[in-house]
Amino acid sequence: MTRIFPTLVLVPLCAVAAADEGMWTLDNFPADAVAEKYDVSIDDRWLRNAQLATTRLESGCTGSFASANGLVLTNNHCTWSCIRNLSTAERNLSDEGFMARARDEELRCPGQQISVLVDFEDVTDKIASATQGMDEADANEARKAESTRLEAACEAAADGERHCEAVKLYNGGQYFIYEYQRYDDVRLVFAPELDIAAFGGDPDNFNFPRWCLDMAFLRAYEDGKPAKTPNYLRWRASGPDAGEPVFITGHPGSTDRLLTVAQLKFQRDVTLPLWLLRYSELRGRMMAWKNTSDAAARTVQQRILGYENAIKVRRNELKALQTDYMIERKAAGEQAMRDAVAADPKLAAAYGEAWDLIERSLAAHRNFYEEHLFIESSAGLSGELYYYAKTIVRGTAEREKPNDERIRAYTDAALPGLEQSLFAARPVDKDFEEVQLTFSLEKMREWLGPDSQWVHLILGKEAPDALAARLVAGSKLDDPAYRRKLWEGGVEAVAASDDPLVRLAARVDPGARDLRKRYEDEVEAPRVRGEQMIADARFRLYGTDTYPDATFTLRVTYGAVEGWQERGDTIEPFTRTARLFERATGQAPFRLPESWSRAREDLDPETPFNFVATTDITGGNSGSPMIAADGALIGLAFDGNIHSIAGDYWFDGSVNRTVGVNTAIMLEAMKTVYGAGHLVDELTFVD
Amino acid sequence: MTRIFPTLVLVPLCAVAAADEGMWTLDNFPADAVAEKYDVSIDDRWLRNAQLATTRLESGCTGSFASANGLVLTNNHCTWSCIRNLSTAERNLSDEGFMARARDEELRCPGQQISVLVDFEDVTDKIASATQGMDEADANEARKAESTRLEAACEAAADGERHCEAVKLYNGGQYFIYEYQRYDDVRLVFAPELDIAAFGGDPDNFNFPRWCLDMAFLRAYEDGKPAKTPNYLRWRASGPDAGEPVFITGHPGSTDRLLTVAQLKFQRDVTLPLWLLRYSELRGRMMAWKNTSDAAARTVQQRILGYENAIKVRRNELKALQTDYMIERKAAGEQAMRDAVAADPKLAAAYGEAWDLIERSLAAHRNFYEEHLFIESSAGLSGELYYYAKTIVRGTAEREKPNDERIRAYTDAALPGLEQSLFAARPVDKDFEEVQLTFSLEKMREWLGPDSQWVHLILGKEAPDALAARLVAGSKLDDPAYRRKLWEGGVEAVAASDDPLVRLAARVDPGARDLRKRYEDEVEAPRVRGEQMIADARFRLYGTDTYPDATFTLRVTYGAVEGWQERGDTIEPFTRTARLFERATGQAPFRLPESWSRAREDLDPETPFNFVATTDITGGNSGSPMIAADGALIGLAFDGNIHSIAGDYWFDGSVNRTVGVNTAIMLEAMKTVYGAGHLVDELTFVD
Repeated sequence: MTRIFPTLVLVPLCAVAAADEGMWTLDNFPADAVAEKYDVSIDDRWLRNAQLATTRLESGCTGSFASANGLVLTNNHCTWSCIRNLSTAERNLSDEGFMARARDEELRCPGQQISVLVDFEDVTDKIASATQGMDEADANEARKAESTRLEAACEAAADGERHCEAVKLYNGGQYFIYEYQRYDDVRLVFAPELDIAAFGGDPDNFNFPRWCLDMAFLRAYEDGKPAKTPNYLRWRASGPDAGEPVFITGHPGSTDRLLTVAQLKFQRDVTLPLWLLRYSELRGRMMAWKNTSDAAARTVQQRILGYENAIKVRRNELKALQTDYMIERKAAGEQAMRDAVAADPKLAAAYGEAWDLIERSLAAHRNFYEEHLFIESSAGLSGELYYYAKTIVRGTAEREKPNDERIRAYTDAALPGLEQSLFAARPVDKDFEEVQLTFSLEKMREWLGPDSQWVHLILGKEAPDALAARLVAGSKLDDPAYRRKLWEGGVEAVAASDDPLVRLAARVDPGARDLRKRYEDEVEAPRVRGEQMIADARFRLYGTDTYPDATFTLRVTYGAVEGWQERGDTIEPFTRTARLFERATGQAPFRLPESWSRAREDLDPETPFNFVATTDITGGNSGSPMIAADGALIGLAFDGNIHSIAGDYWFDGSVNRTVGVNTAIMLEAMKTVYGAGHLVDELTFVD
Repeated sequence: MTRIFPTLVLVPLCAVAAADEGMWTLDNFPADAVAEKYDVSIDDRWLRNAQLATTRLESGCTGSFASANGLVLTNNHCTWSCIRNLSTAERNLSDEGFMARARDEELRCPGQQISVLVDFEDVTDKIASATQGMDEADANEARKAESTRLEAACEAAADGERHCEAVKLYNGGQYFIYEYQRYDDVRLVFAPELDIAAFGGDPDNFNFPRWCLDMAFLRAYEDGKPAKTPNYLRWRASGPDAGEPVFITGHPGSTDRLLTVAQLKFQRDVTLPLWLLRYSELRGRMMAWKNTSDAAARTVQQRILGYENAIKVRRNELKALQTDYMIERKAAGEQAMRDAVAADPKLAAAYGEAWDLIERSLAAHRNFYEEHLFIESSAGLSGELYYYAKTIVRGTAEREKPNDERIRAYTDAALPGLEQSLFAARPVDKDFEEVQLTFSLEKMREWLGPDSQWVHLILGKEAPDALAARLVAGSKLDDPAYRRKLWEGGVEAVAASDDPLVRLAARVDPGARDLRKRYEDEVEAPRVRGEQMIADARFRLYGTDTYPDATFTLRVTYGAVEGWQERGDTIEPFTRTARLFERATGQAPFRLPESWSRAREDLDPETPFNFVATTDITGGNSGSPMIAADGALIGLAFDGNIHSIAGDYWFDGSVNRTVGVNTAIMLEAMKTVYGAGHLVDELTFVD
């Protein structure tokens, strides 16, 4: 439900692919190809309205404005952390659902932020001049420093009213500064019960046919009042027609379609297996731990769905990478490009070394992959409390430096977002923290070995469970006021703190910084240079009628409402309400909430529920509006089918499908099941 | 600790490899090569005594007779199920250890059997004539029927005094009938505490340097008295010298060195990932579940170590198969052999089709791998209780058929062993059964999908946890008397039983048999024929100075006590007691039992503890005697180093090492820590 995965380019794109492939930037949308294939016109006005009506949820999703008063439609699963933070022992909003009957009942989501892209600038040349003539490691540092300076200049030019971010596209072929309007007061308006939002749970996840009301409304506030959002999407109450063209705007998180074969094999052999082993075990621990108390169940209920979702994604990514003939096709495309580069002396001199640079980067990474993962990336020290400790220890030290010398997570442009997250009054379940930390310490010892210097530094002679219990019990970092005190007190307050997690983070930090530096110089620097060479060579050889890998920045994709063939069977594009009730067993995850059982007689069994389209999306697109050619909202993307997962590496238009919620069932449910007429009244309709 | 893995043969062996490679059958031991390399003579008398002094533990291990009165030395970890079955809430033999001070204190291990190979006969020609001219599927059935008849004839010839088993060697290049003396009254004599037997737990497992007293004594009984065992091994109290030649007899369980590249890729892409995902999650569930009660902790304590061991093995097998250059070497060897076959018209006609047959088998298997695994192999219905139900339902039906038409698990030769296991008074922890069954049902639904006919048949509209709770609570199969009643009552008793697990097994059986038949005809039959062709071609092309893949039958391997080089460091072959105490942290799994802390001052810090040798072993060799050229026992194999795991596919003599317990520390511990002078007195020494 969280990731809905995309597309590729086996041989680097020469022209728009025949399939409905591509996560296009808005300045390079293939309007002519779309007009030719679907006989519809998507003009700049259409694109501009879609851009301003599409929101990014900083927690990793997309949404769309549904009224001029800041109402945001997104997926239910995009609001889970908000719902969890607002739930109590007395009131489990995940099980019960939530609806504000009036504005003053809307509840602020701790730490939630949403952004709207308002402008962008191409800075490729500026980055190029800042790194001219340098070796890889120096260029890597200079590139980051220049990005920091460009962001600061952008924010200064907007008098601090905008949030600016450097964006790398085409693996380094282009650099942009994106300028966002940011809302940091976001409130929960409406969310159905988990049982209908995620009906079918993990067994049905990434499957279709499907029946999930995976919707929720948030609202953006400014100065304590609903934000004014004149660009919003009108709805079509009847939803899409079969075969109708459909467009999706949103923020696809990441794809790997431009990676080299060596990089794909690294994922297949190193990254994915280690991740899957760890998370499969973590899932097992959480499945057993949730039975130990009601509080435990509440804490991990949605998190388990999150783990399961991620496991299904990575399991199928691994399966995709084990498809030898696909890897061979990739390899053939890569070889064709290398041959073309080698055949032209100028290209050969400029880009010939690219693939060797990447292989060198991977070989270096393999030497300390586990150490870097468990220590610098904190896989050995999991949990919110350690995250707070690390952020405070490192962030206060970084703040002492000039802006453009800092680690990029702590630049002036990044700090407001970071501080909002650090100070948010999110409840911390200390039992859960202990389970998590114990697990991660055990895995660290398992993978680094009991004789590792890191294991000695962190565990000493303590057992993982005993250490975790002591650290979590003794820490005050669950108190936002204490975090703020340390953060504002800076390096001196940190040095004086006797909080055991702060002390541990301070002890780990110097060595972790060494690992970071080693990673930047030996792994990142040659990789970035190699990737940039390949990107430039690709533009030179194949032109720019192509799209970049996903980067959690705004994209638009197009396609049509259409089923597919599965082992000889035709999968129809629509599901309807009648089958939902037949499929319900009364047992989770196939259990319906009481509200639906009660409303059964009043619901039209023929109402279209979920549907599929040939659009090219991935994780981060969750909550994306599905828009008709006339600009009307006709659906809400929440998932892909099982074939969409291979879309991380390549797009197979014959089977890769987006799964969405039909506006028809959203409206009927609001009216008939939830009595949410006031929300329906806030919407604007085109039919 | 359970698997200690072997050797190979990248290009089919032409002569004895230079490394100390090979799990040799006793009739084909390369005595000349050994004499040349190590200047020692291993003659038939030596081999015959080693054969009769080596025991197979039917639970999957090896042991050796240590006296003329049936005393058997094996690993502690080979006795864990016995120890668990004999433990109670009041007396946890795993934590406390166990020592019988007199014969009448020796405790019978429920269901444990041990066997000694006394004779064998080559029946390759008989199997060949029984299958002459048949297509693969018919030949596959005929081969099994002939094996059953040959076993029955062998047992009849020995007046029922022997247990006979058909054995396939060289993937079908040879067939043998092995004749065993079997002991079905096996008692626990001595076992140290888990904390010292498995010191270092999973973190140290497959590592070296190492400090584990992984030893135990059992005793074989006949007619209620200690068995007479004139062939036993004398001990050398001082253990081995550095560089000394060493020989290991035992029952390596299985290796995959003769598989084709297509078969290896099937393991890499299908078998291993699915297994690892399931068991990583199961491990996580058990880690969390063990904290819910003392009974739970006792039930799963050793099982978790078992899961962890198996996970480490398979994780490193996967890593081995991801070593592209090793796969390429395998592929080159395979291609060389295919070219040699193709170049000779006679060979081409006889064997040319072999590799295609195997690819066809794999393609067929891929189509229903999950269904076969979860249903016919019962991965979706785990636990002892379901095992009993399935065995009773299927076994009573099979017993109705003539012997040579039965599934091979239910032939007259197999039934005594099966019945001993079925009727053994092993305690069943119903809570554990419920956790296991719930997990396996959930995984079945996850992998087969909620719409699978199997999921509908087994779950109906029940949730996995609710169904598991109902089945386990309602079943009487934990009572051995009830199992015996059903088994002896035959198909009518089964049909009349209202036990919910029996009813479920009866409902699953017809479809499961269909899957079995499909597997035999589409997967097994072409594979067996293809493998046999390759085996024959290999003999024709490269001769018979080679060894077969491991098959849990008696083998001997040779090598020397020798360390290795690890990233530039020299690993010395011996560890000593002093470092054990330095390494202890007081926290599991680096916690010493009280008996050792108390004895610390009395122990010689210089006593050699564990050691490594270049011998080629694998899982099933656990508990194997490590024997000097003069026939004296000098060590007890219990593990391999991390490099030994890749030995499933190939043998790298430069790093693959066996890890053993030195006789010196075994004797000192018995005398100084455990006051087991009476056991030391029962041994015979050569120095």
